[in-house]
Parts: sequence; structure tokens; C-alpha cells
Amino acid sequence: MIEATAQLLQKQGYAGTGLAEILAVSGAPRGSMYFHFPNGKEQLACEALRASGETWKTRIAEVALGITDPGEAVAAVCTMLGDELEASAWELGCPIATVALEAAGASEAIRETCAAHFAGWETIVATRLRDAGFDEATAGAAATVAVSSIEGALLLARVYRSRAPLERIAIALRAQLTATRP
Amino acid sequence: MIEATAQLLQKQGYAGTGLAEILAVSGAPRGSMYFHFPNGKEQLACEALRASGETWKTRIAEVALGITDPGEAVAAVCTMLGDELEASAWELGCPIATVALEAAGASEAIRETCAAHFAGWETIVATRLRDAGFDEATAGAAATVAVSSIEGALLLARVYRSRAPLERIAIALRAQLTATRP
Repeated sequence: MIEATAQLLQKQGYAGTGLAEILAVSGAPRGSMYFHFPNGKEQLACEALRASGETWKTRIAEVALGITDPGEAVAAVCTMLGDELEASAWELGCPIATVALEAAGASEAIRETCAAHFAGWETIVATRLRDAGFDEATAGAAATVAVSSIEGALLLARVYRSRAPLERIAIALRAQLTATRP
Repeated sequence: MIEATAQLLQKQGYAGTGLAEILAVSGAPRGSMYFHFPNGKEQLACEALRASGETWKTRIAEVALGITDPGEAVAAVCTMLGDELEASAWELGCPIATVALEAAGASEAIRETCAAHFAGWETIVATRLRDAGFDEATAGAAATVAVSSIEGALLLARVYRSRAPLERIAIALRAQLTATRP
């Protein structure tokens, strides 16, 4: 049920995803949903966002794992994200961003879940940069820039149906990290 | 009616905005909606997105108008966007992004409207950079990077309820444009 919810949220957002559709896609009986998720759709959405976020961060960490240079690692992540987006006919961008923009104002639980995801992703990038010798402040700022650029480029790439935005920010991030690398 | 739709789309997205709510907020009679927008909500949403996008681009151009240095101009735009987001209790970020992510897969008319908006904004930035002496290819790539970073930072700022992401990308964009300025 969490997986079905995660996929629906990624494709069509929170308001557009009804409980009936979640039940239909997951094949789960209605009773089991209220047993496992007594707070209904909001709770189920938060669990689904957390699960999607963990998968996302794991995949990003895997891509970056074997690459020593941080600039090259970020560029490789952009390539992987572009591959996935294109392979899904431009449907599967960031699994969190749609719901974050749409429901952050309406649900504090969803806003906090999305904030924790993005903060966690920033921490992964910042840690990696510190390990490469960047000082704490520079690593933190560069992580925010990397995550912001990638999120924005995923948005543009999805709307344009083109990898170009991801390719352009990959080049810029790689150049910037190479130029500032200690 | 277009204005009411634009505000509702910006705050809560496409699926979450019903025709009944648009009519209630705008005070327009139902009959006039189908007279002016025979294709209903999708057509009204496209008109609203176009209107919001024009307002957005006009405001950005106004902020940047009196500033000669492109890096300073981009930083000033980030400051203005942070001011607006904070003043709206973190509700009013990009008026296009929410619907773009949510409905780009479901409606080709909405996807094309959003793509035209972002492409138009990129063109404004690229033109400004060419006027400052950047060559065509560099200006185009830097415009994509600026628009992507700002969109992503608006997303993070809204979810975190903090201006920090916008401040960090403003510093990075200013530094990058200053370093590459011909």
C-alpha cells in the first residue's frame, strides 16, 4: 500500500490521489488501510514520502559511492536522474517535490516529512564534501546549491521533456566544485 | 476569475482546486465561466498560469532593471523572492511550479503552458547575460542554471520555512556570474 501510494503521489500529487485509487492499485482491502493507517490518507502519504525519500537517497549514494571527485559524483547523479526521467517518459522526477509544493501549506505533517527528506539529502552531500576536504560552511552552502539546482532542473526537464537542464546544471556544479575544492 | 484561479493554483495546485472554489472566491456566476472558458478548468488554469507567469516575469525584470552587474541582478531577484515568500507565511513561491509538477503528465495543454513560461524566463536571463557580453552558449547555459537554482531554492525555502536556500544560491550565482563575466 505504501509503494502504491508513493508511485501515485510521484505522478499526480496529493490532492489528485484518492484513497479509492490507492486501494485499487495496491489491491489492499479498505479495512486494512484504516488498521495500519488510522489517520488515513495524510499518514499513509507521510509513510510513502519517507519510503520514497529513503529509496532516492540510497540510489544517489550508490551512484556517488565509487567516485572520488565530488564534482564528478554530482555529475554522475545528474546523469542517473536524467536516465530515469527519460526512461519513464518524463513522469518520474523527484518523488517528494510535487507533494511538497502542493501540500506543504495544508498539512504540517507532510511539510515536516518533506523538510526532513530535503535536509537529509543536503546532509549526505555536505558530509561527502567535508570528507573531500571542504570546510563545514562551504560544504553546507554547496550542498544547498547542489540540491536546489538538481530539484529545479528535474522540474524543468520534466516540463520540457528534455535532459538539457540536468546536463547544464551537472556541468555547472562540476565546474564549481572543482574550482572550490581544497 | 483568472486571478482567483491563479491564486488557488499557486497555493494548492491543480487537482486540489475545484471549479466550485474558483467560483466562490471570484464571485463569478457559473454560466459566465463556461461562456468565457468553454473547455472548463483546464482552459481556465492555462489562462491563469499565463497571467501569473507574465506578472512574475514583469516583477523580476523590474527588480533587475536598474542593476548593471548580472550577478548583482540575480542576487536582487533572489532577495525579492525571499521577501515575498516570507511575507506570505511561506505560501507564495513560484506560481507555476506546483501545477507544472502535478499536471504536466496529465494535461498536454498545461505542460506546454508551463514549458513556455520557464523557457520565457530563461530567455529573459539569457538576453540580459548576452547584453552584458556573455557569448550565446554561455548565456544560455547560465540562464538554465539560474532558473533551475531559483526554482529549487524556492521549493526548499517553502518547505523549510526559511530564506536560507535562496540566500545560499544567490551567493553562488553571483560568484559564478562574476567569475565568468567577460
